[in-house]
Amino acid sequence: MTKRLLTESDLYPSAFIGKQGNGIISFGSGQPDLPPPKEVFESIKNYDKFKYGLIQGNEELREKLSTLYPYSTPQNFVVTNGASEALDLTLRAISRNGNKKKKNKVLMLKPYYYSYAPLVEIAGMQPIFSESNKGKFDLEDLESKISDCKAVLVNSPSNPTGRVEDIETLKRLEKITGEKETYVLSDEVYKDLIYERENYLIKGPHVVTINSFSKTYSMCGHRVGYLWSLDKKLVDDIIEMKSHTSMNTNIIAQEMAKVALNTPKEYVDNQLQIWKSRRNLIYEKMTNLGLDVWKPEGAFYVLPKIPNPKKFVLDMYNEHDIITYLGEWFGAPDRVRFSYALDKEKIEEGIMRVEKYLKS
Amino acid sequence: MTKRLLTESDLYPSAFIGKQGNGIISFGSGQPDLPPPKEVFESIKNYDKFKYGLIQGNEELREKLSTLYPYSTPQNFVVTNGASEALDLTLRAISRNGNKKKKNKVLMLKPYYYSYAPLVEIAGMQPIFSESNKGKFDLEDLESKISDCKAVLVNSPSNPTGRVEDIETLKRLEKITGEKETYVLSDEVYKDLIYERENYLIKGPHVVTINSFSKTYSMCGHRVGYLWSLDKKLVDDIIEMKSHTSMNTNIIAQEMAKVALNTPKEYVDNQLQIWKSRRNLIYEKMTNLGLDVWKPEGAFYVLPKIPNPKKFVLDMYNEHDIITYLGEWFGAPDRVRFSYALDKEKIEEGIMRVEKYLKS
Repeated sequence: MTKRLLTESDLYPSAFIGKQGNGIISFGSGQPDLPPPKEVFESIKNYDKFKYGLIQGNEELREKLSTLYPYSTPQNFVVTNGASEALDLTLRAISRNGNKKKKNKVLMLKPYYYSYAPLVEIAGMQPIFSESNKGKFDLEDLESKISDCKAVLVNSPSNPTGRVEDIETLKRLEKITGEKETYVLSDEVYKDLIYERENYLIKGPHVVTINSFSKTYSMCGHRVGYLWSLDKKLVDDIIEMKSHTSMNTNIIAQEMAKVALNTPKEYVDNQLQIWKSRRNLIYEKMTNLGLDVWKPEGAFYVLPKIPNPKKFVLDMYNEHDIITYLGEWFGAPDRVRFSYALDKEKIEEGIMRVEKYLKS
Repeated sequence: MTKRLLTESDLYPSAFIGKQGNGIISFGSGQPDLPPPKEVFESIKNYDKFKYGLIQGNEELREKLSTLYPYSTPQNFVVTNGASEALDLTLRAISRNGNKKKKNKVLMLKPYYYSYAPLVEIAGMQPIFSESNKGKFDLEDLESKISDCKAVLVNSPSNPTGRVEDIETLKRLEKITGEKETYVLSDEVYKDLIYERENYLIKGPHVVTINSFSKTYSMCGHRVGYLWSLDKKLVDDIIEMKSHTSMNTNIIAQEMAKVALNTPKEYVDNQLQIWKSRRNLIYEKMTNLGLDVWKPEGAFYVLPKIPNPKKFVLDMYNEHDIITYLGEWFGAPDRVRFSYALDKEKIEEGIMRVEKYLKS
């Protein structure tokens, strides 16, 4: 099959999906390449249930989750179709029922995960952007913009930057938002992939933490995420909405998620070591290339500054069989996102092609 | 465990969910009690995939679906988290991008499936109700209300009435809506459960058909539905939205759906015979009780008129261990919904308890 060359009109993420294989090296889609714990698939060999599950989610799964979060019972969780649905439902609930004294605005850090702005908009709200200080929040800028926002969206570790917010910043954010009665939506889907320290969980009655089994347990295609909140009214609003918009999350996937949570911690520790050595490799290679790049502290992305990014992304795909994602999709128009969710040989070969291109 | 008695404040559907067992007979939740085709579970014994699937849905599944619909290719389908998500995404897309000359209104028949009005509202539109002629559309009333609506929502066979629209009505609706450039959202999740004739598929570039594997193949908990439309722009809008709101539908459930579609037709034929004999039984019993009831022609619901419905639903649960659903939730405040998705012995025992109560 001849490869169809891409043009400027193809510069959106889904144009690159499913383009792996045939010698193509993909730094594109952000998903683990290594399989889930083996117990996950073993657990469904004799699965035979078929009836509706609870809208809020499998009780045993929520029971287990409640042991991992402070001040919590299973009532503080809703299991969703991935973190995406958790974000969508939370934003819709806040847009409809949130603090009426605030404007329908949601503050987020630039660069941001590319679904954030569309999700805020289709929930009927307006995205407001806080400027980045090397991929992290600039607290002064954040404080100057937060007052009339219904929510702040935090993503630490971040997709696309791989940056992890300082604990001091997170504590300050916890305090400001608590005082201003602004929701914090903390997207922590990469929380188990931090190289430098433990995760810091933002807490408070105004916090909604969003998480997923996709990245930690390599279950992207199975779509199990969840939200945690101590705001009982918000949780109830979300369950009521979900009872109409999608009903229960797939019952087998929830069973798999439950088994994943109960697997030995070694699985996650091993994964982290693999990610860390890949991070070291790609960061070193990019630094050696002289690229302006923020050191990733978590997740599996790196976002170097690249001259003429559109031409780079198209040329790398069309002429060098390399998939990368345009920084513009993430609010960083002078940069390009590389996911390093692939084995070291491919990272080395891929960066070699980048080097050859940049030097020519 | 002592049964907690319900009061008027518990009169919403989810208060009754999970209350089966302990001698309780449930005419409540609408889901098949008999299992899916055995091939469905056999197919996943060695399942080991874990990566993201296509947002639009499994290609082989859409390929198979395209052979079942006229003028279609796999591009005309989007596989969703049940019919619920198909409806939600379609309504959101129409609310944002539909015919700007129309008002943000959606016409539906009363009585309606209880999620319709909330789904229309949370998509930012207003539900408009057409009056019922014994559970079917009154064409004159429909025509008088349709002009400024962006869409008409049709559910034939109907939940909660079990009524099937006449082919003449469906053809008329096809014509009027085509002329007025109004979308028809045709929720056909019970299309394989019609006792009297074959289903009539409403067609046209302005039609979105919503379907599901839940009822035909007993896969409610697995949440696989889909939408079919010849309107390429609408399909693209929906895929774009789903790429942010939930991403791909669970990959295992789609595999199961594909296998279900390829099982011998005997499975569906057998199910239909079982449903029909249960329909005959419950309709005869209710008629003998002297209840004012429309004969169900499809699906597995019957919606008799009951004096003092709130008291009936509460008393039947609290004193006689019978779950029924309040007609008010479906826009029929003088009626009560009975699902007959349970075996004949239970239907007989259940109706006996109803008889005893009504005669006392």
